[in-house]
Amino acid sequence: MVLSIDTFQHKSSYYIQKNILNEVYKYCKSFHQIIVVSDDGVPFSYMETLIKNLKNASYYIFPHGEKNKSPKTVTKLLDFLLQKEMNRDDLIIALGGGVVLDLVGFVASIFKRGISYYAIPTTLLAQVDCCIGGKTAIDYQQIKNAIGSFYVPNKIFIDSNVLNTLTKRQFNNGLFEIIKMGLIYDASLFNLIAEKNIIQNIDSIIEKAIKDKIDIVKKDPFDRNIRQILNYGHTLGHALESYYHFKHLLHGEAIAYGMLLETKQKDIQQKLCRIYKKIHFRLHKEIDSKQVLNFIKNDKKISGKYIVLPIIKEIGKCELIKITLDDFINSLGGHHYE
Amino acid sequence: MVLSIDTFQHKSSYYIQKNILNEVYKYCKSFHQIIVVSDDGVPFSYMETLIKNLKNASYYIFPHGEKNKSPKTVTKLLDFLLQKEMNRDDLIIALGGGVVLDLVGFVASIFKRGISYYAIPTTLLAQVDCCIGGKTAIDYQQIKNAIGSFYVPNKIFIDSNVLNTLTKRQFNNGLFEIIKMGLIYDASLFNLIAEKNIIQNIDSIIEKAIKDKIDIVKKDPFDRNIRQILNYGHTLGHALESYYHFKHLLHGEAIAYGMLLETKQKDIQQKLCRIYKKIHFRLHKEIDSKQVLNFIKNDKKISGKYIVLPIIKEIGKCELIKITLDDFINSLGGHHYE
Repeated sequence: MVLSIDTFQHKSSYYIQKNILNEVYKYCKSFHQIIVVSDDGVPFSYMETLIKNLKNASYYIFPHGEKNKSPKTVTKLLDFLLQKEMNRDDLIIALGGGVVLDLVGFVASIFKRGISYYAIPTTLLAQVDCCIGGKTAIDYQQIKNAIGSFYVPNKIFIDSNVLNTLTKRQFNNGLFEIIKMGLIYDASLFNLIAEKNIIQNIDSIIEKAIKDKIDIVKKDPFDRNIRQILNYGHTLGHALESYYHFKHLLHGEAIAYGMLLETKQKDIQQKLCRIYKKIHFRLHKEIDSKQVLNFIKNDKKISGKYIVLPIIKEIGKCELIKITLDDFINSLGGHHYE
Repeated sequence: MVLSIDTFQHKSSYYIQKNILNEVYKYCKSFHQIIVVSDDGVPFSYMETLIKNLKNASYYIFPHGEKNKSPKTVTKLLDFLLQKEMNRDDLIIALGGGVVLDLVGFVASIFKRGISYYAIPTTLLAQVDCCIGGKTAIDYQQIKNAIGSFYVPNKIFIDSNVLNTLTKRQFNNGLFEIIKMGLIYDASLFNLIAEKNIIQNIDSIIEKAIKDKIDIVKKDPFDRNIRQILNYGHTLGHALESYYHFKHLLHGEAIAYGMLLETKQKDIQQKLCRIYKKIHFRLHKEIDSKQVLNFIKNDKKISGKYIVLPIIKEIGKCELIKITLDDFINSLGGHHYE
């Protein structure tokens, strides 16, 4: 299946198809030179599959982990691109999860003011979230996504076969963002996850989640209003990630806690807990809202002393409110989960 | 006079008016915090005029010169913004010439994925060229504008009074880009400069040049085709700037040489020379095309082994051709100027 959308930059096409990784080369024939960038957490067999039919391709692999989503990795990659004499009409391909896509997208956006860019997400989280909407970023001075840009990949290739090599925990990591999408925007998606076998239905789950996100992003390409509903669970989630130094919690897991603690309705909390149980995710950390306050203060969603917070009206419906940081922190105290 | 245009990012407004510097504060009232960035080449009195009526404003001044359009200055400015706890809804104002606008625009584009941004160009070159079209950039690894983005200022304030403190050489520096605009796109502008008193007509000259550039940029916001006619004289010009390490030649002066050497028609060459004489610009350097070849190779306009080169058909008309680098270099050999 191919979804094409017109963005503020150019037409962007999503190719959602099992084994599409084997066919990416067909879309690369007009480029003089190609650099594929990945990290060492991605199975090298994917890189081999990708480049075996590519002409004039080199690859660059950096060490995996959020701590490498850094200015240092950006500098090294830029130096590599210059050394290869890459120019605006050449192609850079990101092959990997969120860290790879965020960083490579950023480099693609600033190298000679932007070069051609394809994204091949290899995790569920990257397939349904990071690769849509053109947000790129690196961390800076210990602040998550402090530096970044909006830069939409020219083409995105989604191959659900690559999910086979993920651990259960990595798979769930992406599933939490899909659950969030169901909660804020798409009751049918939420119910599909709650009621059906997830693995058997993964292709339609991915397709629904991608269509939903494209739909929201179209309405607000620069994340100034409605798109902020995608931050549901993220105000607390990002703070938790910073607080645990990106070590003990995956992004999706942090959002899982964030969603539960930011949800006011008991019945929706229970439904969330039931899904968490179904996918064998155990809540086991206590949150001290005072301690995460300092991290929240550095969150980019803060507008003056107020923050913009998405709240759930009912499953599939969400609205944005302005709330003081103090009121938000205080509201967290009243929640307990099983 | 106010010109408003819709860009791919947002509405962008040009305020072209003597003494507008005194009134910028009126357009800043909705911002919680404002940082004004300038370099130490800009008369400090302009900064004082600007900030005396601004609430919650701080300023940041970096050393002037192309060598400071660097990753190091970017890092220091980012650190200052974080230290001030700036967020996406705050405002950054660039006050200065091309170096200030290029660098501050770049920082504004990547800080938290883009914050509100005003530009106040204080040189003729910046008023008619750098502030239009959203090109931002820094130099990297000795390559001019190797890193950058497209980021359009929300508002641009053009005050021709600030040109009074420019030296004759700095004034001419901007005039060369206006002459280029006349040559490639606007015969009436070219003739105005060739035939009338330039100082007496400076306001209408600036207005014409700005309108022309807006017109071209609108047709090609990401510099993929027609906009490349603005590079007339720049292929050789950029190479010269690099070759002289940005020391002995100003940007406009390099373009002045570039235009003359890239122009094939004898009569147009003569008209150019007459204008150069009128504004007391003396050509005095011999160009060795072999020596600049290596610098041209790193020019971002290179597409494979070919470059896209604007050529003049007649005054006010221009077209783009594809030419090999070797043919371009060889064609330079045949030119001599008085």
